[in-house]
Amino acid sequence: MKITALAGGVGAAKLLSGLAGVLPSDDLTVVVNTGDDFRWMSLYICPDLDTVTYTLASLDNPATGWGVRDETFHCLERLRLLGCETWFQLGDRDLATHIYRTHCLQRGQNLAEVTAALCKQNGVAVRILPMTNCQVPTMVHTDEGTLAFQDYFVRRMCAPRVCGCSFEGVEASSAAPGVIESIQDADAVVVCPSNPYISIGPILAVPGVRASLLTTKATVIAVTPIVAGEALKGPAAAMMRQLGHEVSATSVARLYLDFLDLFVLDRRDQNLREQITALGLEVFTVDTVMDSMRSRVMLAESLLEALP
Amino acid sequence: MKITALAGGVGAAKLLSGLAGVLPSDDLTVVVNTGDDFRWMSLYICPDLDTVTYTLASLDNPATGWGVRDETFHCLERLRLLGCETWFQLGDRDLATHIYRTHCLQRGQNLAEVTAALCKQNGVAVRILPMTNCQVPTMVHTDEGTLAFQDYFVRRMCAPRVCGCSFEGVEASSAAPGVIESIQDADAVVVCPSNPYISIGPILAVPGVRASLLTTKATVIAVTPIVAGEALKGPAAAMMRQLGHEVSATSVARLYLDFLDLFVLDRRDQNLREQITALGLEVFTVDTVMDSMRSRVMLAESLLEALP
Repeated sequence: MKITALAGGVGAAKLLSGLAGVLPSDDLTVVVNTGDDFRWMSLYICPDLDTVTYTLASLDNPATGWGVRDETFHCLERLRLLGCETWFQLGDRDLATHIYRTHCLQRGQNLAEVTAALCKQNGVAVRILPMTNCQVPTMVHTDEGTLAFQDYFVRRMCAPRVCGCSFEGVEASSAAPGVIESIQDADAVVVCPSNPYISIGPILAVPGVRASLLTTKATVIAVTPIVAGEALKGPAAAMMRQLGHEVSATSVARLYLDFLDLFVLDRRDQNLREQITALGLEVFTVDTVMDSMRSRVMLAESLLEALP
Repeated sequence: MKITALAGGVGAAKLLSGLAGVLPSDDLTVVVNTGDDFRWMSLYICPDLDTVTYTLASLDNPATGWGVRDETFHCLERLRLLGCETWFQLGDRDLATHIYRTHCLQRGQNLAEVTAALCKQNGVAVRILPMTNCQVPTMVHTDEGTLAFQDYFVRRMCAPRVCGCSFEGVEASSAAPGVIESIQDADAVVVCPSNPYISIGPILAVPGVRASLLTTKATVIAVTPIVAGEALKGPAAAMMRQLGHEVSATSVARLYLDFLDLFVLDRRDQNLREQITALGLEVFTVDTVMDSMRSRVMLAESLLEALP
């Protein structure tokens, strides 16, 4: 059973650690959003790639959802004293990843190669692919103007009202090697419980990705990131509301309707089952909230059972 | 009394902290060796500039002679796990300096501008100038071939036998703005007790520096880095021997003879006084070993007294 997952940050990482626990590593490929990537102090930072890699390497910090566990912030504190902007929290151990990546990119490696090297050195056997080797920065259009993603997400803490997102240069970008193939060759594609606008949206916008989801023989399955009218983490619910949609799993299902076969609904949203079925989707109802390692594995096992 | 100092690392930094204690900040300019500078993981590292700046900012680690006090090495340890060469010890707090410098250089600032900014942010009022804004890496010619300086100094721990040094590209380099002027306009130029071959040598090799030392009306004064036939720190004595010279203060005086007015000899080398006077130099004898803050200030005060 070959599975390819489309992933954002924390929610995706939790499901992926469950899937990695029940699948042979060779059978799991993860395509990760890179729209959040940014430069800080000339270091190249890929928040979603790092969250997924750290989680699969069991280096993640469950308390924060970002960075490395048992972290210190001595370098950042010194940079603050040197007058640098330090609203993005980068720990000393985490910085090693960014220094390594930036160095490799400057020496001519592409992001996929650096990502593969980081996986290998961190002992992650699952194949993690950036959605693209190109830079396609997510721009958030808000009532305060257009903001670079981290500016909206971290510095402004999602306060501005969102009226849309775009991914700069995405039309001219191309999927990283293996991305399209991994979707075409999979038995199942899992859209992780990530923000549909700013985590999954950028992946779908990379030329060829949506088309391959439409044509693949894989069962395409999405796990809802909205449960009981709330996002478990991040601004998905607020963005959904600000963009004029009802905050519900049904709205998520509509966004993926063209390529989706199976929608994984949380048990708490049982009442939406009929509505989503009426869209022409198969619906599978389960506990989707992963508040323990056990629940991650259970959700992963449920997904595998739900597949034809 | 305007003083310009030519400086390498630890020995120089100690004397400079003494001078900074007895002179108004405006009256002290320091021209620092940059031959040791190197790139590591694409970060631009200037060991002597950092040692001088950290010392004048009271951030230095007296136990090691390099880096920042109360340091941790979490980032470096992670980089080691990622397979990087980590023989150059860079602490978490120290890394902030290198990240800052590299970022500013990439944004188009020159090394003198970055150095001035680092001084300002660290509260160092003394003017610290890199000898040049150009890259003039020190190469050490040894019985094991030609080695980049840090390769010789840190990785090989000065083990290879030295037959010469050169400074790549120095003929085409130019002194950083203010360097030549600060030598010409000073009342005294102090050659700090640093390695004459690899700390002071690179500064003297920058076009215009030696010539300005020959023509300045300043009293040019050198403090011996060799006491009782030993270098207080580093490979100066070993290099002197390997290059075929007697390991003594007299050999140091000979290296600077063309531009020197006054040689500061350690009391323990009183017996060399006549020999050095015979070279045509004034000799001033004092305790030069700076093993306490008090002794740094005392040496600085002695130097000022010795000046005409």
